[in-house]
Amino acid sequence: MMRLSEERAREVAEKLNYRWPDGTVVAVVQEYKSGRVLMVASMNKEAVIKTLTTGIVHYWSKSRKELWVKGATSGHIQVLERFYHDCDSDSVLLVVRQASLMACHEGYHSCFHYKVEEDGIEVEEPKYQ
Amino acid sequence: MMRLSEERAREVAEKLNYRWPDGTVVAVVQEYKSGRVLMVASMNKEAVIKTLTTGIVHYWSKSRKELWVKGATSGHIQVLERFYHDCDSDSVLLVVRQASLMACHEGYHSCFHYKVEEDGIEVEEPKYQ
Repeated sequence: MMRLSEERAREVAEKLNYRWPDGTVVAVVQEYKSGRVLMVASMNKEAVIKTLTTGIVHYWSKSRKELWVKGATSGHIQVLERFYHDCDSDSVLLVVRQASLMACHEGYHSCFHYKVEEDGIEVEEPKYQ
Repeated sequence: MMRLSEERAREVAEKLNYRWPDGTVVAVVQEYKSGRVLMVASMNKEAVIKTLTTGIVHYWSKSRKELWVKGATSGHIQVLERFYHDCDSDSVLLVVRQASLMACHEGYHSCFHYKVEEDGIEVEEPKYQ
């Protein structure tokens, strides 16, 4: 688990560019073990600070207008292992350990389980190679 | 390279939910060989259709308000291998072959080369494991 001090977390959070709707950055979530891209979510400054200080991934829900912990009700929390930001500081890459095989509310490991093919959509977990 | 017919590409593009600014979906770009997350960008409907019909990744530039081909000037194009969308159809995952070691204009393989640490930022290419 990766955790930072409150002071350092605030310093990191201050530097990001919250230029997406609701004052957020885009968070791409990748699984530590498999490299699978699990989901995309939004984080406001508070979500970034909470994530970095607790090591438990927090997001901002744009529909519910509230902070949420992934897995708060299901128990399928995401534990932070690495935290990167990109060159224009408006997106972050979270490498996590997912405390369940399901990151998606539809019962899949990844939210990206719709694979586009010429003859339709194939439902399968994404792979890169 | 993955390519779809014009008809099928339009069908896919019609189904996505362009609920991000400028009528876009968020595109997460992952490298085929390494699984490395290279960048996040935006795609409007036209960028989705162009990408799916040509196999060459196109994005929408929100700052320049125009369609652009990644690598059009540098030659570092991205060739589409797989195309996924997520459970609420507002984000896509592009698995690509990157025709150069540099996806980032700062001269790195990935835009996510800023790793947050307790004692500062380490500049290194992201890894998941």
